[in-house]
Amino acid sequence: MPFFALIHCLDLLGTFVFALSGALVGANKKMDLLGMLVLAIVTAVGGGTLRSILIGDAPVPFLRDATYLLICCFATFIVFCFRLVLGKLEKAILVFDALGLGLFVSIGIWVALQKGLTPWASLLMGIITGSFGGVIRDVLSNEIPHIFQREIYATACFFGGLLFLVMHKFGVNQEWTITSSALLVCVIRLIALRFKLSLPKAEDP
Amino acid sequence: MPFFALIHCLDLLGTFVFALSGALVGANKKMDLLGMLVLAIVTAVGGGTLRSILIGDAPVPFLRDATYLLICCFATFIVFCFRLVLGKLEKAILVFDALGLGLFVSIGIWVALQKGLTPWASLLMGIITGSFGGVIRDVLSNEIPHIFQREIYATACFFGGLLFLVMHKFGVNQEWTITSSALLVCVIRLIALRFKLSLPKAEDP
Amino acid sequence: MPFFALIHCLDLLGTFVFALSGALVGANKKMDLLGMLVLAIVTAVGGGTLRSILIGDAPVPFLRDATYLLICCFATFIVFCFRLVLGKLEKAILVFDALGLGLFVSIGIWVALQKGLTPWASLLMGIITGSFGGVIRDVLSNEIPHIFQREIYATACFFGGLLFLVMHKFGVNQEWTITSSALLVCVIRLIALRFKLSLPKAEDP
Repeated sequence: MPFFALIHCLDLLGTFVFALSGALVGANKKMDLLGMLVLAIVTAVGGGTLRSILIGDAPVPFLRDATYLLICCFATFIVFCFRLVLGKLEKAILVFDALGLGLFVSIGIWVALQKGLTPWASLLMGIITGSFGGVIRDVLSNEIPHIFQREIYATACFFGGLLFLVMHKFGVNQEWTITSSALLVCVIRLIALRFKLSLPKAEDP
Repeated sequence: MPFFALIHCLDLLGTFVFALSGALVGANKKMDLLGMLVLAIVTAVGGGTLRSILIGDAPVPFLRDATYLLICCFATFIVFCFRLVLGKLEKAILVFDALGLGLFVSIGIWVALQKGLTPWASLLMGIITGSFGGVIRDVLSNEIPHIFQREIYATACFFGGLLFLVMHKFGVNQEWTITSSALLVCVIRLIALRFKLSLPKAEDP
Repeated sequence: MPFFALIHCLDLLGTFVFALSGALVGANKKMDLLGMLVLAIVTAVGGGTLRSILIGDAPVPFLRDATYLLICCFATFIVFCFRLVLGKLEKAILVFDALGLGLFVSIGIWVALQKGLTPWASLLMGIITGSFGGVIRDVLSNEIPHIFQREIYATACFFGGLLFLVMHKFGVNQEWTITSSALLVCVIRLIALRFKLSLPKAEDP
């Protein structure tokens, strides 16, 4: 089915970009090649893996399809060899990252709904699929996770996921539902980055 | 059944107080609204979720009953709006927290025994249910987990859980078993806080 | 069967040595007795537990066999009482640690193959079984995990695991396969320690 082939390609592209971001963090933290690879893997597959564990869908996806791990190895190799060049592509990477985020959220909600979860639980699974790879990456590099402190990130996942649920409720077909919600996540994320939007914080005492 | 209705209410109250403590840590770490919410959720449901994953009881509880997440949202909202007032209620919160801890431990052991685990494994599951939400909260806020360093915390869980197992062994009915062990955890915890009791540490070399 | 009795003994010995290393880190971080015990447990059983969760093999092993937890308690007690003496045994501990690592890797791959995973996924499960207990230990003590930064560690697991897969593929019997791969991990690790070998890092920009 050509549509799902496209989704699969974009999923792999999202995996690749997330793996790049993980390997880059590893390199910046002066980790060795292996540390970079592990960070690439957890960033790229961590969110989907946590979703699978919480739902009870084991073995987890990256054990069933080796393509994900091969992509992480490739991304780590790229960062290891061309780190200086990548620094100049930062903006392009942020765009791909936003696109990958949107796809991961849509795919996460879709998997959760297939497993019979309620819409709200599925929305949460979508957010986790999209954002927790980065959280695990930051915990392993001994940082407070970025999504807790900066920019609109999980918020973008939330509104994109909400759109998914509404379209799903009104019986719109899967192709449009997945595409629209992924794009909404991506657009909100890019707007937030462009204008440096943030959520409010609690007042200081 | 009125007794289990009461237990359920106290479980939800415990969830609320744990969520308050998570959201307060987030606010103190200058996290945004979303970071506070995530910390509230992991603190409140993290222990029970880890127990379910270790036992193999998926989907995990907070995906089956949305009440837990609603309570976390509400607690985060409270902290966001009334952070200054909450600072003055610190002692009341510590009492509720101790009560919630006791209930979480008892419920954790009870669930594990129902699943056919051995008594010692169930005791460990009770301790994890009560204390690991706080551990995950501290890891995500980039701190060494408090229970490793301060006050009698898991120790209180241990002795309360031991009482549960003894009463269970001698066939005391569930109502008394759950209530007594939860109260024992709560009392030990409050005494330790009041007199600043701590476990010994290894001698410095 | 005497061979598997020997494997079981060595598995327990590996658990003991890993638990020692966890408790020692806890003592160095000025944790109390409980913190030391928790670090001993996560270091010793963390890798195998994560493997079981990823494969979907629950309840996890340490809930099925209480011996592991008893060993962790014993190791914590030893560190608590004889911390100064242990400092002088550091080299002996590193040798046992390398042996435990090798056995954990072999056992991890073997369990994963039994569960029907592909060879590459099994190799990854072996590496995780051997090294992720230490990763969780370092996260809980608020450090960047050592294996990301120092010495050949997961690399040793990788080559030992590769030998396991090759021998398994060519139908060598289990006894030789497990022993040889465990020894290879151990030898690579000891050579790396002796000559302070490390993986390369990405160039600084």
